[in-house]
Amino acid sequence: MEIETTRGGAGGEEGASKTSSEEIADLERRLRDSETLLEIGVALAGTLDLARVLELALRQAEDLCRAETSSIWELDDDSGELFFRVVRGKAAGSIRGLRVPLGEGIVGDVALSGEPAIVNDVHADPRWHGDSSTGFETRAILAVPLISRGRVIGVLQVLNPVEGSRFTDEDSRRMRLFAGPVATAIENARLYAAQKRQFVETVTALAESIEKRDPYTGNHVRRVVCYSVLLGTEMGLDDEALEHLQLAATLHDVGKIATPDEVLRKPSPLSEEEKEVMRRHPIDGEEIVSRIRDLRGVLPGIRSHHERLDGLGYPDGLRDREIPLEPRIIAVADTFDAMTTERPYRKSMAPSIAAQEIAAGVGTQFCPQVVAAFLQLYDRGEFTLQAGEEVIQSLSRNGRRR
Amino acid sequence: MEIETTRGGAGGEEGASKTSSEEIADLERRLRDSETLLEIGVALAGTLDLARVLELALRQAEDLCRAETSSIWELDDDSGELFFRVVRGKAAGSIRGLRVPLGEGIVGDVALSGEPAIVNDVHADPRWHGDSSTGFETRAILAVPLISRGRVIGVLQVLNPVEGSRFTDEDSRRMRLFAGPVATAIENARLYAAQKRQFVETVTALAESIEKRDPYTGNHVRRVVCYSVLLGTEMGLDDEALEHLQLAATLHDVGKIATPDEVLRKPSPLSEEEKEVMRRHPIDGEEIVSRIRDLRGVLPGIRSHHERLDGLGYPDGLRDREIPLEPRIIAVADTFDAMTTERPYRKSMAPSIAAQEIAAGVGTQFCPQVVAAFLQLYDRGEFTLQAGEEVIQSLSRNGRRR
Repeated sequence: MEIETTRGGAGGEEGASKTSSEEIADLERRLRDSETLLEIGVALAGTLDLARVLELALRQAEDLCRAETSSIWELDDDSGELFFRVVRGKAAGSIRGLRVPLGEGIVGDVALSGEPAIVNDVHADPRWHGDSSTGFETRAILAVPLISRGRVIGVLQVLNPVEGSRFTDEDSRRMRLFAGPVATAIENARLYAAQKRQFVETVTALAESIEKRDPYTGNHVRRVVCYSVLLGTEMGLDDEALEHLQLAATLHDVGKIATPDEVLRKPSPLSEEEKEVMRRHPIDGEEIVSRIRDLRGVLPGIRSHHERLDGLGYPDGLRDREIPLEPRIIAVADTFDAMTTERPYRKSMAPSIAAQEIAAGVGTQFCPQVVAAFLQLYDRGEFTLQAGEEVIQSLSRNGRRR
Repeated sequence: MEIETTRGGAGGEEGASKTSSEEIADLERRLRDSETLLEIGVALAGTLDLARVLELALRQAEDLCRAETSSIWELDDDSGELFFRVVRGKAAGSIRGLRVPLGEGIVGDVALSGEPAIVNDVHADPRWHGDSSTGFETRAILAVPLISRGRVIGVLQVLNPVEGSRFTDEDSRRMRLFAGPVATAIENARLYAAQKRQFVETVTALAESIEKRDPYTGNHVRRVVCYSVLLGTEMGLDDEALEHLQLAATLHDVGKIATPDEVLRKPSPLSEEEKEVMRRHPIDGEEIVSRIRDLRGVLPGIRSHHERLDGLGYPDGLRDREIPLEPRIIAVADTFDAMTTERPYRKSMAPSIAAQEIAAGVGTQFCPQVVAAFLQLYDRGEFTLQAGEEVIQSLSRNGRRR
């Protein structure tokens, strides 16, 4: 059995018998290492996007130790288990989905002890459970704990040195130094994502509570959000644009807060005068949200989601490209949901009929690109609330999908 | 005139004539520096609190260059001016409030060129404008640009070397390496604070829009928030607790979204039955906010702000210490505002009379500690909306007051 566990100090004085030139070469190498780590540290700290932090950390870890592949495990404080967070390259299949209890296996041991471990022959290590049958063969592991603000938050490991077959104490020392910036960057990205999630959840809860005043539209907002992000995904919007669209869709009817009960809750068709009152909600919504400095970008989605390409919509009678993309998307989502849900004064429409209506409105009421995306999704059977929920989930997981 | 400006590489090869032992000493020193910087970098990245980042950065900068004092200037992209962000020690008075246009003076020059500058005799430098009359005398300056994500965001400078009288190229090299982690940490703390501000602004805008349905209470929420944080400050709550209280106060009446117009907007006193409907708002508010995972902590402030110490409040008839601190504070703020604003069915009360009423309610309706804080503030003439706004402003500035 061959287990070396490196502990303690940042040292590396391997004896006093070195010549001056050896000593200089050694110091130069360590200085190079240290300055490289400093640079990487800045690069790691320079993003609050978790996916990018993880990708950068693994790439650099492999470079630093010339390893075939690498992975990061995250400690789930609630369950006391480590779950695989991200892995690069060939080992991907072998550990995806794995969960390891704290203290079990090599990874679990490193997380529990807070000390790095070098295992140059995993098959001789009693903690080794073997690779799953994916073709990747683990020979050697170097694993270091990720410690942020004094707490183990996970484990970073590199697998199989490319040249030669052994990880060295020097690799371990380097990885330990490297683990500090990595852990901090992961923690910062997490905190940032949590703050973002809190924001989205709060906007959603308040928007949905506003909607609750209208007894006929239960969960309309949630459905419009689902449909909107589905359409956006199909149209190829990136994650940032999708998150933005999600916010705009969440807030699209927020102006209804100002619509009096007698209009909002009227159980029969509205008079012309009442319709006028009802049609103020895009402007009221814009007014409310305009007070939030950083949300100016969603205002068009709120103000213009009842516009039509032929200029017959409201409140501004905009035409064609005068209507920005977000309200064009929300309009299709909104209309489809309105048609397929029951109102006191009319029955709901079958989805297939509603889809035909959407298709019939192309170029007059609706934007051709949005309708094309809608029909593609619909024809593939993917224009479902569940599919929309999945997009929203994946957006919220890291603030960004991977 | 004596200006040295260090440019380019991370070098430090000052000639080939060094002996081995000199070379070793030099490498060891640089390695020590580099490893120190690595550690500091992790410490800097380990907080998203701007005030702490700045304090730590300055302390370390002074240590690294053995300087008497130090300051950080921030570039205001809108005005193209540098304004003083933070300064330590004796120079504090001399630059507080100063604004320097980009390209002017030593600091402005460094920000514009993106290159560090050593000025060992400021009086001989034509860019030097002199110290203002605070007793601090600047002799020498070492200034480095703070560059984050490829953009100059400010300048870090150290003043007056403690030992000897000159800053060296070595100091400059060290500071340049140090400036990377500092700039990134500042930028991250700012982004985090911006996200937090967006959250608070959004909650405030939505809560205020909900309030708008009630035509008789214009800006009641804002005033209750002001009064609550004032009381909290007087009671010695820390910034985190104050931010929490601010959120709870902002959301205290959010449940009124579910109160029908006919009750909420009734221009005459409510019947018993209508009062019952009105009294549901703390429970409705709790229900709405309970859907936001990270806001569970504010629920007591929402549910229990109409409780009384004598058990005669609603909805739960809690007594004394059963009522958590936040609702006890909000209750005083809420009642004072209700008494001092006009309702359709009653005149507003003079503040002095309202203060007497609050004092009279001590121990039955209100918590003695909160009333004591209220009376102290009131007697000093500091129980004003403006004073409350100032607390809120200072909380939002950095996410944390300095």
